[in-house]
Amino acid sequence: MTLQKQPMPFSDDEYLTRLARTKKAMADSEVECFVVTDSGNICYLSGFTAESAYVAQALVVFAGDEYPTLYLRRQDAPAGMYLSYMPNEHIVAYPEHYIGDYEVDGFDFIFDRIADKGQFDRIGLEFDAVSGSTLDKLRERLGNNALVDLGGVIVGHRLIKSEAEIELQRQASLITDAAMQVAVEAFEPGKRECEVAAEMTAALIHGTPEYAGHPTDTALMPGGLQSGTSHIPWTERHVETGRHYNIEFGAARYRYNVGLMRTVCVGEPSAKLKKLYPYMIEGCNTALDVVKSGATCADVANAYCDTIAKGGYEKDSRCGYPIGINWLETSCSLRTDDPTVLTENMVFHLMLGTWLEDDFGAIISETFRVTESGCEVFSTFPRELIQV
Amino acid sequence: MTLQKQPMPFSDDEYLTRLARTKKAMADSEVECFVVTDSGNICYLSGFTAESAYVAQALVVFAGDEYPTLYLRRQDAPAGMYLSYMPNEHIVAYPEHYIGDYEVDGFDFIFDRIADKGQFDRIGLEFDAVSGSTLDKLRERLGNNALVDLGGVIVGHRLIKSEAEIELQRQASLITDAAMQVAVEAFEPGKRECEVAAEMTAALIHGTPEYAGHPTDTALMPGGLQSGTSHIPWTERHVETGRHYNIEFGAARYRYNVGLMRTVCVGEPSAKLKKLYPYMIEGCNTALDVVKSGATCADVANAYCDTIAKGGYEKDSRCGYPIGINWLETSCSLRTDDPTVLTENMVFHLMLGTWLEDDFGAIISETFRVTESGCEVFSTFPRELIQV
Repeated sequence: MTLQKQPMPFSDDEYLTRLARTKKAMADSEVECFVVTDSGNICYLSGFTAESAYVAQALVVFAGDEYPTLYLRRQDAPAGMYLSYMPNEHIVAYPEHYIGDYEVDGFDFIFDRIADKGQFDRIGLEFDAVSGSTLDKLRERLGNNALVDLGGVIVGHRLIKSEAEIELQRQASLITDAAMQVAVEAFEPGKRECEVAAEMTAALIHGTPEYAGHPTDTALMPGGLQSGTSHIPWTERHVETGRHYNIEFGAARYRYNVGLMRTVCVGEPSAKLKKLYPYMIEGCNTALDVVKSGATCADVANAYCDTIAKGGYEKDSRCGYPIGINWLETSCSLRTDDPTVLTENMVFHLMLGTWLEDDFGAIISETFRVTESGCEVFSTFPRELIQV
Repeated sequence: MTLQKQPMPFSDDEYLTRLARTKKAMADSEVECFVVTDSGNICYLSGFTAESAYVAQALVVFAGDEYPTLYLRRQDAPAGMYLSYMPNEHIVAYPEHYIGDYEVDGFDFIFDRIADKGQFDRIGLEFDAVSGSTLDKLRERLGNNALVDLGGVIVGHRLIKSEAEIELQRQASLITDAAMQVAVEAFEPGKRECEVAAEMTAALIHGTPEYAGHPTDTALMPGGLQSGTSHIPWTERHVETGRHYNIEFGAARYRYNVGLMRTVCVGEPSAKLKKLYPYMIEGCNTALDVVKSGATCADVANAYCDTIAKGGYEKDSRCGYPIGINWLETSCSLRTDDPTVLTENMVFHLMLGTWLEDDFGAIISETFRVTESGCEVFSTFPRELIQV
């Protein structure tokens, strides 16, 4: 028996179509070799999702090759064969002595192999997805003008999703809705916050009977006097009546994410929250109402901001971003001044966290797909202030 | 009511001692301003653990200031005040319009503030913890010679742990041992792999009655024909009798990690595994036996490799690495050729994954602290091939 491929989430044709688009961008920039290091872009072009990016790795696209080549450390090469669609000879392992060496790393090996392959006067690299040290080292090796910054190119291609990508996000949303229900039921006075976090995280991985949840970002739940914060871990405390918690999470399928956020009150909401949240719900509804092919990112953000302004509220942070292989795909933003035109099958996380004071804020979000005439909201979870 | 500080895991004195050591390194490199961007180093010097590093952020140490200053986007500033030990005026928020802007980002703001503060001819930066794009941009702003690479400096300081750091790792190990028991019991034929993953992940977060588990890396469990891989997510499959799974995980406390890995067989182990695993256990024991202050990293790795060589086996990947705020702290490695001398209170993850073929491998690991005369192994979980 030998290692086989995982059931691939996409057809070879879909991967090859993505590759053709990358090659087109390479031709436009007059590069015949493109060293892709962003782990989301590597996943997009190969299927590879292993959590190995803490060491040097790259997917190298040679303009003349049918398939890209994935360079991984020896220990990760079997994962490369298992997870990526390319024939096994397109997974190249570099020896383990490159790991933990003080003088060289895997990029030395990768660029040696590129040199073996031919003379490339210009090599594409994602300057935003290599460290400054690596960029300096490669410049020293290749000369100042050999490297061409193609950062941001592939993430731009990822902005409009295929039907198969959207289907994975729909599956992730089914899991997320189920997990939100588990999360809501987990908030009981006296229970430790970590126990709530454990239950909601487990639900994101457990998945639905049909679909397994795959690894995703940490589920967060800042609450109480920390409801004005974001991105923080749960605390050592017990859940107490009178606190509200901002649940920030989402499941993933084959690394495709969706986000869903709601505020949960344990007991009666504070007067402040009771006044704010209806504006947030109305703002969310209004923002979704303006979404359609041809509207702009700014239209969506302004719909939210104008609605909450009626209550005297202001949201200074952006109202969302494209979501897919990465939770946040930095190609455009739902900002009040972003002129990007929405196109069918773009998928956004409309993230309406409204943090008014250092110690007070609330949250609501939806993940949606742009359609010709409006949008498809993936979640069916009620858009309301949840009270338990 | 206003936002207060979290119960800090370390005393102010401990943070200030760490800071003094950083300032000493700055003086040695003749820099009076050090822009720390590695999120592990930011945590080490401030306590900040929010998951916000996907946008520009930095802890800036000015040689003349009593405290460092943490620069965060506006949305994350309350988390900075909550999680870090410094007085609130040392948390500086940059406006949200820097997020999702095509022309500028938070580093522009941060370096504007540094310029306001004074004229610094040489500014320290961690070249391995900024992107190539950021390094290019800062060089363009400051001139070619203004930036001094201090990458690797602070992680070197983190190699020897304090008593308080070690205590957090002991707590994390208590959680990890309990979670390993949950994980072992979770493997039942017919159950989906994602359900096993959900249970073991939940246990890492649920913690012990005394200690909450904090966010940690994804718990992994490659098994069956994927036992030769590492770093991959669980699959859509059901657990089947005859497969073995390599559990790779560990809990964290205030971001301090430990690792614990074991191989679990569902049903009778294969002949191949039954022959291999006793050498791995003996190798693990032998490696731990040679640990003491004054031995070298190479001594430990060679003890393992020499032991399994008696069975005709070879491990080409390193035998471990320092572990702490990061799962992997890249200052030295348990490699057969790493001459680093072990010193009391260094903490390592002795990671003995032995992947023999693309479709076959097994795993065992321990996290230990170096002592004067030997080592303290944090886990008490039996060192054996687990059969369920």
